[in-house]
This record gives sequence, C-alpha cells and structure tokens, in this order.
Amino acid sequence: MTDVSYDARTGRVVEEIPTSTLSEVDAVLAAAAAVAPVAAATPPATRKSWLYAIAAALEVPETVDELVALADRETGLGEERLRMEVGRAPIQLRYYADVAVEGSYVDVTVDAGPPRLARMRVPLGPVAVFGASNFPFLFSVLGTDTGSALAAGCPVVAKAHPAHPALSARLGELALAALASDDAPAGLFALVSGFDAGSRLVRSPNTAAVAFTGSQRGGLALWRMANERDVVIPVFAEMGTVNPVVVTPAGVSSSLATGFVESFTRGTGQYCTKPGLLFAPAGSDMATQVTEALRGLAPSAWLLTSQIADAAVEGVGELVAAGGTIAGQVPAPESGWTAPATVLTVPIEKLTSGSRLLEECFGPVAIVTEYRDRAELEAALDELQGTLAAAVMAGDADPDVPWLVDRLSKLAGRVTVNDWPTGVAVSGAQHHGGPWPSTTNPATTSVGAAALTRFTRPVAYQNVPEAALPPALQESNPWHLPRR
Amino acid sequence: MTDVSYDARTGRVVEEIPTSTLSEVDAVLAAAAAVAPVAAATPPATRKSWLYAIAAALEVPETVDELVALADRETGLGEERLRMEVGRAPIQLRYYADVAVEGSYVDVTVDAGPPRLARMRVPLGPVAVFGASNFPFLFSVLGTDTGSALAAGCPVVAKAHPAHPALSARLGELALAALASDDAPAGLFALVSGFDAGSRLVRSPNTAAVAFTGSQRGGLALWRMANERDVVIPVFAEMGTVNPVVVTPAGVSSSLATGFVESFTRGTGQYCTKPGLLFAPAGSDMATQVTEALRGLAPSAWLLTSQIADAAVEGVGELVAAGGTIAGQVPAPESGWTAPATVLTVPIEKLTSGSRLLEECFGPVAIVTEYRDRAELEAALDELQGTLAAAVMAGDADPDVPWLVDRLSKLAGRVTVNDWPTGVAVSGAQHHGGPWPSTTNPATTSVGAAALTRFTRPVAYQNVPEAALPPALQESNPWHLPRR
Repeated sequence: MTDVSYDARTGRVVEEIPTSTLSEVDAVLAAAAAVAPVAAATPPATRKSWLYAIAAALEVPETVDELVALADRETGLGEERLRMEVGRAPIQLRYYADVAVEGSYVDVTVDAGPPRLARMRVPLGPVAVFGASNFPFLFSVLGTDTGSALAAGCPVVAKAHPAHPALSARLGELALAALASDDAPAGLFALVSGFDAGSRLVRSPNTAAVAFTGSQRGGLALWRMANERDVVIPVFAEMGTVNPVVVTPAGVSSSLATGFVESFTRGTGQYCTKPGLLFAPAGSDMATQVTEALRGLAPSAWLLTSQIADAAVEGVGELVAAGGTIAGQVPAPESGWTAPATVLTVPIEKLTSGSRLLEECFGPVAIVTEYRDRAELEAALDELQGTLAAAVMAGDADPDVPWLVDRLSKLAGRVTVNDWPTGVAVSGAQHHGGPWPSTTNPATTSVGAAALTRFTRPVAYQNVPEAALPPALQESNPWHLPRR
Repeated sequence: MTDVSYDARTGRVVEEIPTSTLSEVDAVLAAAAAVAPVAAATPPATRKSWLYAIAAALEVPETVDELVALADRETGLGEERLRMEVGRAPIQLRYYADVAVEGSYVDVTVDAGPPRLARMRVPLGPVAVFGASNFPFLFSVLGTDTGSALAAGCPVVAKAHPAHPALSARLGELALAALASDDAPAGLFALVSGFDAGSRLVRSPNTAAVAFTGSQRGGLALWRMANERDVVIPVFAEMGTVNPVVVTPAGVSSSLATGFVESFTRGTGQYCTKPGLLFAPAGSDMATQVTEALRGLAPSAWLLTSQIADAAVEGVGELVAAGGTIAGQVPAPESGWTAPATVLTVPIEKLTSGSRLLEECFGPVAIVTEYRDRAELEAALDELQGTLAAAVMAGDADPDVPWLVDRLSKLAGRVTVNDWPTGVAVSGAQHHGGPWPSTTNPATTSVGAAALTRFTRPVAYQNVPEAALPPALQESNPWHLPRR
C-alpha cells in the first residue's frame, strides 16, 4: 500500500510513499507505551527542551524553504500563506512548552486534611494524532495536538496526512532528528502512515487517547471505533462547523461584505472556523453586496484534495437542492482540484434542523439569509447545530449585542463581536471547541493553554508519604508548579 | 406502572408508587430547559441560598427521624449508619454551594490580548441524575450529583431510585418545598420515577448531561444510549470497581486482617470503594488471619435489593468457578435479602485480564491472593482493570511504597497508603473517578470541588464589549470570581 503525493495544482501524481505495515505500527506503539512512564516522570523543563528542539528545526532557513515548497505542491495553499503558517508552528510549539513549565494545567491541589489528600493531573500515555489537511503545519504532524501532548508528557504517534504525505514524512524526520539531538528517549514520537495504520492506532491497547482535527465524518468514525474498544479511550475530535455570523440592523456597513468574502474564502474556504452562514437584516441588501464583493475577488484558488474539490462542487448542488439559490460565483482555476467560490442566498424559513443548509460545506462556499425581526432570527438560531465559533457584526453600543452574545454562547465555543471568526489565537483564554457535533467533548479545546489538559487525568494521593509522592506534589516542589 | 417499596429485612411489599408517565417526564424536562438560562444567569450567592435551603430541610429533627426510618425500611442499612449519612448530606450540599461562591471552578481566564479574549465555564443545562442505591442520602436524589449540578447553575431532573422509591419521593418533596420557600424558579428541580422515565431522560433533546452512580452494566447502558442520540451528550457514570489493596512484606501486621474485613463488609460490602482484592506476601498467612477476623464479625446484614442479594450469592459461585476457593463465610440473616459475608482465596496466576475474578462482586465479598515476589505482583497488577481507588498497606519508610504508589496511580483515580479506600472525603483535592471502566470519563470526579466542573463547558468571548459580557467576565466582577 502507498500514500500518493500529488501536485494540487495539476492533480498529477508526484510520488508514491509506502505506508506503514501493521507490525511497524504495533512496534511504534509498543515503544510509545514503554516510554510513557519515562515521559510522565520527565520534568517540564526537559519536555520544554524537546519542544524547543523541534521548534528550532522548523526555523532553519533551508528547511523552511524546503517545507514550504513541499507543502505548496501538496496543498496548493500558496507560498505566502504557507510561509506564514510554518513561521507560526515553532511559536505554537514553544507556547505549549512554556505552558508545561508554568504548570497550572497540572492543577495541583492540596487539602488541609485530614485525610492528607493531594491531587494532580497525570499524563494519559501514548496519544494518536490525526492532523488536518487544511493546516499542514499548525494542525498536522507537528501541530497543536502533537505539541500539547508532548508538553503534557505523553508520547505521540502521529498519522501522516494522506493529503500531504511527503510533507508529513519530512516533518516526522525533522522531529525525530531534533528529539534525538536533544537526547529525548526513543519512542517518544513516531510517524505512521496509511488508512489501516490509523485504525490500528485507535484500536491498540497501547493507545491512551486520540486527537483528531478534520471532518465530522472522519472524527465521528474514530470516536465510534474507540467506543467499541474493551477499554474505551477518549477521542478529542475537533470538527468542521457552520460558524454563523449575525449582522445586526446597526451593524450593516459598506465594508462588511468585503470582510465576509475575505473571511469565507480565506485558505480557499478551508478553515474549520469559516463563517459559512450570514444572517443579515431584511432590506440591508447584504446578499447583493456580498455578491458584488465576490466578483471583485481574485479567482478561487486550489483545493487540498480531489475529494474536497468534488465535495465542494457537489455541496453547492446539495445546497441548491435544499432551497438555496446561487447569487454569485467566481470561476475556479482550470487545472487541478478546484471549485468556484460561491455565495448562495436562502429564505430563512428553509433553515430547519437536519437540513443540508445547516451543515458545513467545506471550501469557498457561504450562505446569506435575511431575517425580518428578532423573533424570526431567534427561531432560525434555534435550528442550528453546535459550532466552534459564532460572530456578531454590530454597531456602537448596539442594543442587540448582549442578547445575541448570550444566545450564541449557547451554540458555540467562541463568540466574537466585530471580529471574523476565522483566526484562532494560541493563548491562555482561547477555547477552540464547542458543543456537539463541533467536537466530541465540549469541555475541551484543541488550541490554547488548556489543550494540554485533554491528555491528562486527575489522581488523588491519600496519606502517601513524602518520599512516595510524585515530584509535582512533594513539599520541596522540585517542578515549581503552582498549587492551591 | 409502579415502583415497589419493600421492607429490605423481610422482602415484603410495603407500598406501590405509580411511576411517571412519559408526558409527565417531557413536561418536567421542558420546564427544566426553560429555566436553564435563568439558572445559568443566577449569581452564585443565590444558588448557594437554594442549596442551603435544601440542606436546612434535611436537618429538621422530625424530618431526620422520618427519613432515617424510611431509608432503613427500604435499604436495611441500619439506623446508625443512616443517621450518620443523613447528617452528612446537608454538609455536602453546603460544601458545593460554597464551592460555587468561591468560584475558581469557573476558571475565568483573561488574555492580555490582542485579541481581547476572555474565557469562563458556562453551565451545560438540565442534568439527569441517576443516583445509587447504596448511599440513599449522599449519592441519590439529593446527593453529590444533584448538589454539584445545582451549584454549577444547572437544573436537575432526578430519577427516583427503584431500591428506595418512597424515600426518593419524600426527598423530592422536601427539595421542591425548600426551593419554593427560597423563591427558586419553578422547573429547577424535579423528580421522576420508573425505568421508562429514565430512558426518556437520557434521550430527550432537553437533557444536556447525565450523571450516574451505580453498576457498570447500568452506567454503560446509559452511556451507549446517550451515544446514539442525534446530539450526543456527556454521561458521567461512576461505576463499581475492584479497588485492589497491596500489602507489602513490611506492611503485614496483626491488625490488618480486622481492618480489611471491616472495610470490605462496611455497609454490607455495598461501597463502590470496597477493597475487593487483597494482595498479600506469600507466607504472611493473611488469608488465614482474614478468615479468622471474618469469623469474629457479627452476622452479615441485609442487602439493598433482592437482585443485589441474588447477584452476591451467584457472584461467589462465579468466583469459585473462575478459580477461587471459599476460605470463610459468615451466615446471613434468615429473612429478607441477604448473602453471607465471604472471603475467597485465589492463586495469583488465575488473575488474568477478562477473568470474573477481576470484576466487582457487589456485596460483602472479597478475595485474598498471595504474591511470591515483585515480579509476580507486577504481572498480576498488569491484568487489572481501571479502578476508583487502590491502597498500599506498608511499614514505616517502606521501600516498596514509592514504586507501588506509582504503579497503582496508573490504574486508579485515588491511591491511599495505610488508609482503607472505603471513605471518600468531600474536599478540594478529592478525585472520585478513575480510568475506564471505573468511569466513562477519567478526567472527571463525582465527589469534591471539581464535581461542579462536569456540568460546565468553556466559552471564549472575543472582542465582546463590556456590556455584553456575562457578569463573571465583566470588569467590575460582580460575582467576585477569581481570575487568571
């Protein structure tokens, strides 16, 4: 079996890369399980050093050039965007390393007693990482899941993404070399490839948790597979959603349409935070303005895979069949995997729970609908699925903002006001997650300081003598963790 | 349909209580969903007042007498134990109320920015509570799940426990009256009854989360049911486990056998933290000592239900079939639901993953096994399932404690040294949970300050103007919550 590396702009096969055999996968998992207690007992400063070593490897100028060229060929995302993304990857890895050293995610809590009880979060063990195709640096082999799992003290077995297998392999090599040069223990990180390897990762008794970023179909398939294990393990799947935007009557402005088009076509519409559905006040003429703004746009760029391109084209057909009308389209490039950037309008009464109109259409596709009054808007919002992000576009001291923020916070993991939802800051207060089906666990985030927490579980130590406590709980506090 | 209230000591039917109709359940859930935003927006001081009102209702002397009598009739747990338990219930409710007011569980986090990003945990909405039969006050209708969910700002719909339906009904009445007297909004709490009502609770679109305490069979059934919903909701099931105890060579003492027998027969062995499996050093003669200590014990008391009594008797048969030998038994009372207190010995090599010997046998039943050396002990520990608690019984400055604490922390949510695992303190550092299958979510606890966290999820607010932020995030901090 092979993973096929394509040129996204032509659709041509560039190379075929043999995928992992199941015995290779098993060996890698056995090594990860063997090193898990070592990783768990490693002080945060050493874990920081591992991640800093990987980060540094991603900053060598020739490496950056090589990675960007490889990524651009496989993803078609363009050099400018990919240079920016590869530039952020080391920042993200160092961020998680610093979060590990800061250590409040360990949540060390000590009771006055009796009984003498102290609690900390301990690493779960080997984490299987399934990255996304749309962010080959920030959400793939060396992205947010790998960074936060290693920072938390968990070995990582990453699966090569079939949409960028050559880049995945190269990133895997770089990480292994960087870890070896930093004297990290063998087995701490590995890359495997192929569909069967992915199933094996989820089913192996040596895997303690799964992290996934991608489609609902993919994420839920892994979640179901993990739920069928003898020992069920957590699957942290962060999946694509519609990310609604509400424009209030006072929020209508001349720049809004351009901003919306820029946001929903960013990365050729391949963001999990793409604003896919815009609610505009009736009479605001937003649909026309959006259509015009779309016409002014450069031609739509390439998509990540032929499947994504086909699904985007078919998706527009499905949206039309469900009651949408194409209001504007920008032609796509003529070669490779493409789909025209498309905006549709939909009568608001068609937005009913279960309709295709309320499911993500991955790619440069968005819907504009109009509401006559608050009651009609609220009724439509009641029909929406859980979502990663939701936005309000409003005026100054706008009376509609408080109730909309409150209403959208019931649906979303992040609510923005006068900010498009597309960008996701890597920070302490970030929450990149949300209610089902945007994630399989609404309590967890895949980005930001709290991302480490996913890969840990609390253990309480009762009446345990000092010498037998883990370092994090010892009185001398050798790991310098904050305590409550 | 009816729930049947029995006298546990005679097995006789005392009364039949009609169960809820499905339309009653739906009405209660609709009311809970309607009041959920109100509960979520209620300041913690008011939520504290609700819980204090319920707590006070449980302290009226005539009420205590009535509840203890009712509980004793339905559970057979005895007046002394039940007086102690009912005495702790208000303490537990007030504890959760105080945790809500202290407010660090909300995890308010504010970034320096840009972007202006602030995160808090928001209540999930209506929680369905399935209590346990073995703690009719601390883990049932007004127990830890109801207390922590109300404290977190979630409405609660509790299901009457079929093993104490009359007590459940009475507790429900008391809570409703107390909440009404404190002007709490209608719909905040309700009691429903019957098996079909339970399924309806889990399947209703108005239910946001499920909390369960009880058997693995029951908890996993609810978890599977919730996983089949269109919108999957979290099920926090805390389930029975084996809770192994390891006696080190230096830990052998003359009082150990008595302590073990007292611990595993406490509440007629009906604790989810019952030490069910004791590893003793070969040649320590622990099996003989435990058998003798058992003989000195008062006759085994009643069990909670006829099903539990039957399962305990059958369980002993299954343990024998799997390789155990009955070393000692105390005869059971002659009437009602009973099973003899039983200790079995098992050759350590019979303890293999999947064996019945490594599954909980609910009731006054425990196993003693002997290990020859550390290698044999470690091999056996490798076979064990995830468990709520594990204990080490050791000597002073015992060299075996550090590695055993470390090893058992991989298996358990709580590790104790020279403390039997049976008691569970309600405190800040408590973790009453553990790896699969002791719970459905190893990251959460059903007891202690962190119990509230289960019923919340984070939301990040980006660039939201002050006036539209929830009170918890406003600059004036009207809820006085700690921030990072």
